[in-house]
Amino acid sequence: MIIKALLFDVFGTVVDWRASIRNDLEQWFTPLGISRDWEAFAQDWRALYQPAMERVRNGQRGYVRLDILHRESLDSLLPTYDLADLSADQRDHINRIWHRLQPWDDVLPGLLQLKPQFILATLSNGNIELMVNMARNANLPWDMILGAEVAQAYKPDPQAYLVSMDMLGLEPAQCLMVAAHNEDLRQASSLGMKTAFISRPTEYGDRQTVDFAAEEAWDFDCPSMIDLANRLRGS
Amino acid sequence: MIIKALLFDVFGTVVDWRASIRNDLEQWFTPLGISRDWEAFAQDWRALYQPAMERVRNGQRGYVRLDILHRESLDSLLPTYDLADLSADQRDHINRIWHRLQPWDDVLPGLLQLKPQFILATLSNGNIELMVNMARNANLPWDMILGAEVAQAYKPDPQAYLVSMDMLGLEPAQCLMVAAHNEDLRQASSLGMKTAFISRPTEYGDRQTVDFAAEEAWDFDCPSMIDLANRLRGS
Repeated sequence: MIIKALLFDVFGTVVDWRASIRNDLEQWFTPLGISRDWEAFAQDWRALYQPAMERVRNGQRGYVRLDILHRESLDSLLPTYDLADLSADQRDHINRIWHRLQPWDDVLPGLLQLKPQFILATLSNGNIELMVNMARNANLPWDMILGAEVAQAYKPDPQAYLVSMDMLGLEPAQCLMVAAHNEDLRQASSLGMKTAFISRPTEYGDRQTVDFAAEEAWDFDCPSMIDLANRLRGS
Repeated sequence: MIIKALLFDVFGTVVDWRASIRNDLEQWFTPLGISRDWEAFAQDWRALYQPAMERVRNGQRGYVRLDILHRESLDSLLPTYDLADLSADQRDHINRIWHRLQPWDDVLPGLLQLKPQFILATLSNGNIELMVNMARNANLPWDMILGAEVAQAYKPDPQAYLVSMDMLGLEPAQCLMVAAHNEDLRQASSLGMKTAFISRPTEYGDRQTVDFAAEEAWDFDCPSMIDLANRLRGS
């Protein structure tokens, strides 16, 4: 069956959250005379991501947008960095760093090459507002924002994938899941999707412990989006 | 409050469904040696649109996608035109004319002028697959497809508007509803949205009875998207 749509994981696969958050914080706090280990801050903030979603996935709480989970995690993290005095407006500004994340260098040329041939949609845990703002800020040429918010379920909950594909009117075998995370691809594959691993060995910096390489025989195993585009050309 | 997003009605406002359907049918049927009044066919098909949605709006049936309503209407219409013999594949092809509708001439230049300043999203009764395919076919630069399917409710049900704006994280006063239909703008205005009327006096051809002009003092009353873009520039 021919691939019609590419569905992208975003955090880590499309954008470099770690460097983006570190740089954004440094540029914003330095003029205020505040200095911290922003690399560690970014990593610590991201470390609260899976536990926050897990409470939704296991039913302890209903679906809430990732912006809200990010904000709760931020609020819990700030005292650790002696930043408990920040105002609500300042916290809002910091929380919206996720709306301003920058893509890896290979992403825009790869997506622009893929766009004429395939529907390009996000299948991310990020909420719609976040993804729309990120796309406008970074010129990501998505045809549609799908994933957690339209499905009201966080990956790897099967609903996040199944609702997204159904909204495009496509069968799983017509959809290629593109991700830098083996777990994401394992779930996609189990649901009948095609799979592409994009190698992002520096995503977590010195804390990276997994996803240095493809762990299974995914349909594509690529060092970049450009490589994926070249291999899909004319397929 | 500053306008952040423009939310567009699509059928009639962005695309010329009547001419697109008429031309598509004529080009497809002529080589098959089949000739009909395709202008009347397009108008008759569209005339079944509101009654089909009304059964969802009034609760007689649950939400189903517009593609399905279009197909049911098509199936009911074909015998009238002595076309009951068409196969399922042929009916599918005809039904997907809605995915291939062409925009009015002013739309692309207007949207491209608006895009850097505003979030551009559909707030249409069309389903996501239909809107994504239309956008790719006609190069419509939407940031997001919103409206009936994400809200599971057909305009003018307030949910269609409210869910769409909420997904963008915006207040109604930050959103401008753009439509060629006074009824759509009346509902948008009642919910607190800003309003822009785009004049499409030939939308329904010789059957047009309403919407020749703005019926209330909408925030903008424009002959084209280009005019709207010029008036919003720098606002």
